[in-house]
Amino acid sequence: MAYNVVGKSVNRVDAVAKVTGKAKYTDDFSERNMLVGKILHSPYAHAVIKSIDVSEAKALPGVEAVLTYKDLPRIKFSTALPGVANDVLDDEQEVDLPLFATAGHPYSLDPGHRDKEDRYILAKKARYVGDAIAAVVAEDAIIASKALKLIRVEYEVLEALTSPEAAMREGAPLIHEGSEGNILSTGGGFERGDMEAALQESDYVIEGEYETSIVQHCHLELQTSHAYVDADGRINIVTSTQIPQIVRRIVAQSLGLPWGRVRVIKPYIGGGFGNKQDVCYEPLNAAMTLAVGGRPVKLELSREEGMVDTRTRHAFKFKIKTGVNKDGTMNAIEISAISNTGAYASHGSSIAGSGGSKFRYLYPVKAMKYSPVTVYTNLPVAGAMRGYGTPQIFYAFESHIEDIAKQLKLDPIEVRRKNLVDVGYIEPLSKNKVLSCGIRECIDKGKELIRWDEKKEHYKNQNGDIRRGVGMACFSYASGTYPVALELAAARIVLNQDGSVQLQLGATEIGQGSDTVFAQMTAEILGLPLSMVHVISQQDTDISPFDTGSYASRQTYVSGMAVEKAALEVKGKILAFGQKMTDIPAHILDLKDQMIVYKHSGEPVIPLWEVAMQSFYDRVNAQPITSDVSNNARINAMPFGVTFAEVEVDIKTGKIKILEIYNVHDSGKIINPQLAAGQVHGGVSMGIGYALSEQLLFDEATGKPLNNNLLDYKLPTIMDTPDIGAAFVEIEDPTGPFGVKALGEPPVISPAPAIRNAVLDATGVAFNRIPMNPQRVFEHLKKAGLL
Amino acid sequence: MAYNVVGKSVNRVDAVAKVTGKAKYTDDFSERNMLVGKILHSPYAHAVIKSIDVSEAKALPGVEAVLTYKDLPRIKFSTALPGVANDVLDDEQEVDLPLFATAGHPYSLDPGHRDKEDRYILAKKARYVGDAIAAVVAEDAIIASKALKLIRVEYEVLEALTSPEAAMREGAPLIHEGSEGNILSTGGGFERGDMEAALQESDYVIEGEYETSIVQHCHLELQTSHAYVDADGRINIVTSTQIPQIVRRIVAQSLGLPWGRVRVIKPYIGGGFGNKQDVCYEPLNAAMTLAVGGRPVKLELSREEGMVDTRTRHAFKFKIKTGVNKDGTMNAIEISAISNTGAYASHGSSIAGSGGSKFRYLYPVKAMKYSPVTVYTNLPVAGAMRGYGTPQIFYAFESHIEDIAKQLKLDPIEVRRKNLVDVGYIEPLSKNKVLSCGIRECIDKGKELIRWDEKKEHYKNQNGDIRRGVGMACFSYASGTYPVALELAAARIVLNQDGSVQLQLGATEIGQGSDTVFAQMTAEILGLPLSMVHVISQQDTDISPFDTGSYASRQTYVSGMAVEKAALEVKGKILAFGQKMTDIPAHILDLKDQMIVYKHSGEPVIPLWEVAMQSFYDRVNAQPITSDVSNNARINAMPFGVTFAEVEVDIKTGKIKILEIYNVHDSGKIINPQLAAGQVHGGVSMGIGYALSEQLLFDEATGKPLNNNLLDYKLPTIMDTPDIGAAFVEIEDPTGPFGVKALGEPPVISPAPAIRNAVLDATGVAFNRIPMNPQRVFEHLKKAGLL
Repeated sequence: MAYNVVGKSVNRVDAVAKVTGKAKYTDDFSERNMLVGKILHSPYAHAVIKSIDVSEAKALPGVEAVLTYKDLPRIKFSTALPGVANDVLDDEQEVDLPLFATAGHPYSLDPGHRDKEDRYILAKKARYVGDAIAAVVAEDAIIASKALKLIRVEYEVLEALTSPEAAMREGAPLIHEGSEGNILSTGGGFERGDMEAALQESDYVIEGEYETSIVQHCHLELQTSHAYVDADGRINIVTSTQIPQIVRRIVAQSLGLPWGRVRVIKPYIGGGFGNKQDVCYEPLNAAMTLAVGGRPVKLELSREEGMVDTRTRHAFKFKIKTGVNKDGTMNAIEISAISNTGAYASHGSSIAGSGGSKFRYLYPVKAMKYSPVTVYTNLPVAGAMRGYGTPQIFYAFESHIEDIAKQLKLDPIEVRRKNLVDVGYIEPLSKNKVLSCGIRECIDKGKELIRWDEKKEHYKNQNGDIRRGVGMACFSYASGTYPVALELAAARIVLNQDGSVQLQLGATEIGQGSDTVFAQMTAEILGLPLSMVHVISQQDTDISPFDTGSYASRQTYVSGMAVEKAALEVKGKILAFGQKMTDIPAHILDLKDQMIVYKHSGEPVIPLWEVAMQSFYDRVNAQPITSDVSNNARINAMPFGVTFAEVEVDIKTGKIKILEIYNVHDSGKIINPQLAAGQVHGGVSMGIGYALSEQLLFDEATGKPLNNNLLDYKLPTIMDTPDIGAAFVEIEDPTGPFGVKALGEPPVISPAPAIRNAVLDATGVAFNRIPMNPQRVFEHLKKAGLL
Repeated sequence: MAYNVVGKSVNRVDAVAKVTGKAKYTDDFSERNMLVGKILHSPYAHAVIKSIDVSEAKALPGVEAVLTYKDLPRIKFSTALPGVANDVLDDEQEVDLPLFATAGHPYSLDPGHRDKEDRYILAKKARYVGDAIAAVVAEDAIIASKALKLIRVEYEVLEALTSPEAAMREGAPLIHEGSEGNILSTGGGFERGDMEAALQESDYVIEGEYETSIVQHCHLELQTSHAYVDADGRINIVTSTQIPQIVRRIVAQSLGLPWGRVRVIKPYIGGGFGNKQDVCYEPLNAAMTLAVGGRPVKLELSREEGMVDTRTRHAFKFKIKTGVNKDGTMNAIEISAISNTGAYASHGSSIAGSGGSKFRYLYPVKAMKYSPVTVYTNLPVAGAMRGYGTPQIFYAFESHIEDIAKQLKLDPIEVRRKNLVDVGYIEPLSKNKVLSCGIRECIDKGKELIRWDEKKEHYKNQNGDIRRGVGMACFSYASGTYPVALELAAARIVLNQDGSVQLQLGATEIGQGSDTVFAQMTAEILGLPLSMVHVISQQDTDISPFDTGSYASRQTYVSGMAVEKAALEVKGKILAFGQKMTDIPAHILDLKDQMIVYKHSGEPVIPLWEVAMQSFYDRVNAQPITSDVSNNARINAMPFGVTFAEVEVDIKTGKIKILEIYNVHDSGKIINPQLAAGQVHGGVSMGIGYALSEQLLFDEATGKPLNNNLLDYKLPTIMDTPDIGAAFVEIEDPTGPFGVKALGEPPVISPAPAIRNAVLDATGVAFNRIPMNPQRVFEHLKKAGLL
């Protein structure tokens, strides 16, 4: 369909704001005379706290409060907080603190569907190097830092369990009391079809093992928030989050408050990538302000804290067994996985399962079985990160399918084609139906872009020190979380006298450009130029329409449905008002170029502004036009895509250089091609780091982080980043607004296996562990006899 | 009817905020690195600007911009302001600036019903001592002040017309070109009945002349605002106003911008009393930020500026002729009035008429005629002030009726009783019907409170130096402006998971307590404790529901209707959701104490929070409950009331002391008695100042203000203020929410004539001009032979 604003590469609505510094981030909302909070982190990976002496810290001039787990229930709740219990306890009394879960999921009425509650605001026992043991609130950062050094903690050091194997070892100490063998969860697995029979009927059963590492989001803006008790006695938190409504709930839960007594404000944020889909420090920040009578307290992490004391990506180990016929037809896929969730559950119970559930769509083989185990270790907490389990499982399987093709001497693309999903497939477990599927078109386009056949031929039989190869990998994903979780989204539109509108969103702009695509959708439906749609980007849980937040690549699809519904409602009201003014039936009218027009001819009837003016000022019929709609999406659409990569491997140094890389996506209709390409560029860059250089390193014996800074952690720089090609096959999905499907996370999924497969093509060596950094490549190539 | 929250003297919802300093006022929203704007005021009351040289001022380091009327059309509109014409003119070219009206009325689609457009943002001709001639934007206030002194203006001084008589004099120079004899308006008058016949049939025709003076609002917080261009290219203005939506419109009009390109934010404000129902300096503030590329500029007036360079109360001169029978029955009232509007129209065209229109209800005599003339003078601009013309006309008439009673030797109360309005009266011109009327009950209560009969008897035949007397005066008013102007109001309610709600208002809390009564209404309807209603007090034209603003004593009545409607809508949605959950029909359910209950028995059915939780999280039916309603009130209700005062006059010094004073109001149901009493206390205090001490003084020849400061302007201090008695006769009006009628302005109307009549009772001397300050009293008493 032809559109005026949708499908166009208009500038981001926040472009000028962001490049001129006018866009307001959390820090720009600082209160006057704000106190500063700092956290005392554990130096031990696993240790019982025997005693804490905060007397010296408290005595330091300028220190307003020192908090340990013992103080939390004794916080002096402001008397302006009606209805809040104030349990004053004896100093020495041991208490059960409220346990809570930090994962940023919508609340579930089903207790069995909630995240594991395994945290206190401050720890009673250290579970990783960095665990929050105590906190200080002081007049400034220097005093707060000094005070941290004056806190005396006596620890009883326990064995540091720094790998899942160590943690699952018979007799290993328990990181969380009550867990069985340090296993957080064996959930999220599934089985469909008759596995035994499917393996039996296969010509070959091919096995492989694959491993991914711990990486970190490294968003530009660190975790930062400030909190205060407002005049209404409520806790206000201004925070850099993807999920203001969920922060509100979890802060209230962590403090035992009614949820309505917390208010969260989300300004512009400088990236999140899932790390801000977790409620890491807002509860502590709230406790800090309560500890100082409601005065504003700022809690800002350093980069070093941000890299290990927030969340990381789960490292996975996979074992895969595939039953396959001579022609490449796969009959059975059996995957077992161990996911390392670190010291606390966070999103751990969901991520292994989520990876599997998205993987299910790509190859609808007869029998599939997935058995994940998620294990606690004494390492930093793993949580949500772009892709949410899929970069791991697709790295493993798309490597594995390449190995199958190699072993069977078949074309790897043809093996995939033989097994790929088609439109009409109903995934038996989720019951989601694939209503649009462009994966084959994506492959065709990617092959063409990289000149696959030509290069494949050209790179046969290399034997120099510099070798080149091409590789590819596919993925499937979902648009939001349906049917796993609630998909509620909302939007509010307010018409102005001049025909322009405000668009107030519940969904959070986190850099992905959602404000812009929502504005485009609104402008399209209301026949307005984009400059007449004013987006209220900031979310305030008090008044923003309720949306669960930005995650799961749900915004353009799920929140877009709410925007579409809100805009259509406003359009309906405008046309009805137009009918009142002109006597022309609304159903033959339309909106175009700030006019009400005849639908059949486009001929102008009355300017929009005249209708708008009447809606405000007609003495009898005045009724300002607004809409405030909520949408409960009970449907999902599967995006697909592929990465094609060409690499050059320096056999002597182990250095891998990416010569060309293309991501081709079937994300349905693209609302803004330039923004979509930007999303792909960022995702592929993240995927390149995942494949080649990024890994958080820890001392195996002590669990101490070794590279939690941007110098030693090898994030790809612009020098490491090739030109990234982004392409789309725009097949409109019937369920999405304007035919869209998800695009937020997908770009990060397939680059790593594509690069791995290109390296295999170049060298003949299979790298079954990422990152393929020079040291590891060198070692492997040496072992393989190439050196 | 019995209520749980309504009718109770609960604490103001902003009480804690305001006494602890947490409530945020305009200044608390200051931007970082804000520039400072200052205004150059004319030293002449009437002068043509022959030339302005700003070169020295511009050259001063730290000066960012200097503006004169010549610069306004040449403001460099930010390139981020799409669609805005940027007319760059030759330096010497004379231009027609956009004329605009500042009066804070809702826009009217009828051009004949709009306010007189007679202003520029900066004047081309000085029309009073203080007129804004030029403006400076500088790094700080000191530099800005220095720069003002460097602006060289050459004036051609004209005759200063400092009284209506001077202005209307044949051959007087015209203050505004095009006006006829400096008359702004002769509108707002009316005539009903056959005046000639009614006078003829009367036993007596009694005449009198009465005069009021120029006074000032003297709100605590001065006019202050700051403006900047936001990232969307729109002008944002944070300002201390009663009427954010109207500020938005007028700023846009004054700059020729589409209205949607201005956004106004209204924080808590420290009083307005009508002075902030005018758009005095927001257009200039907007021009200032445009002149510096959109950087934030603060414009804060000093008290000296605030007292003469904003608005004052119109001084009136009345001539009254009344046809009356021997028994006190009035047949005819003929009033002519001259209203002094000062240098610009502001609300001038409305105020004289409004006073008359509210006066019409009290005494529905056979024939009534009102002929006001509103005149420009070279004095500060008169505008809206609490009572809006009624303190003037009721001072005059309630003095006059006292004089009639005295002349006819009748009891002044009985004369009033004989002529007072009754329920059922339809005012012939407005067609408004009096559906409730407690004026007689007010008089009874007031008489009793002050022990009228006893004192009246006791104070007969005094002749010492200290004499006492009692007096009273009545008034009628209206609730809002219907049918004169649009009465649109709106409210939005958002239900939280715990059953608490946010109440988002379009009506502005300006100190009168409207947020509290709206919260009480909401709590009452939703069965909540007040602490569970969280009021969003701040208005933001982008997202607040559209309400024309706070003026005309319209909030509790008109905006209250919108709140009631919004709460009932939320209640309906809650009960419907409850029906879905319980299968019990919604129409037999009710809300009480945070529960859904059976309507007939009050027996609990299901807790509200459970319904709220389902409304957010039910996987199938989730639909967060909100309401966003607008209400177009096309009805009005007349409040009535009376003041009883007892005074002591020191014959030798002319000092009048108020011994007792009571205001008794028929304002329908009182939502919060303590707040209502507070409203009465403030109004009576203002009325006492009006009666006894307040007057802005000007040099007659030059128009220079003589006492524009709080030392020389005699605002009553706490030492001058007696205990003020407030009482109510609570007759519920069928039209108002919960039966309310207006109470905001009424308390200020009748104190002055009641005090004047008490002084007459004490001394036998009629004071037909206020204020009755010691000097004037002394002179009159001397003239009357008492000294």
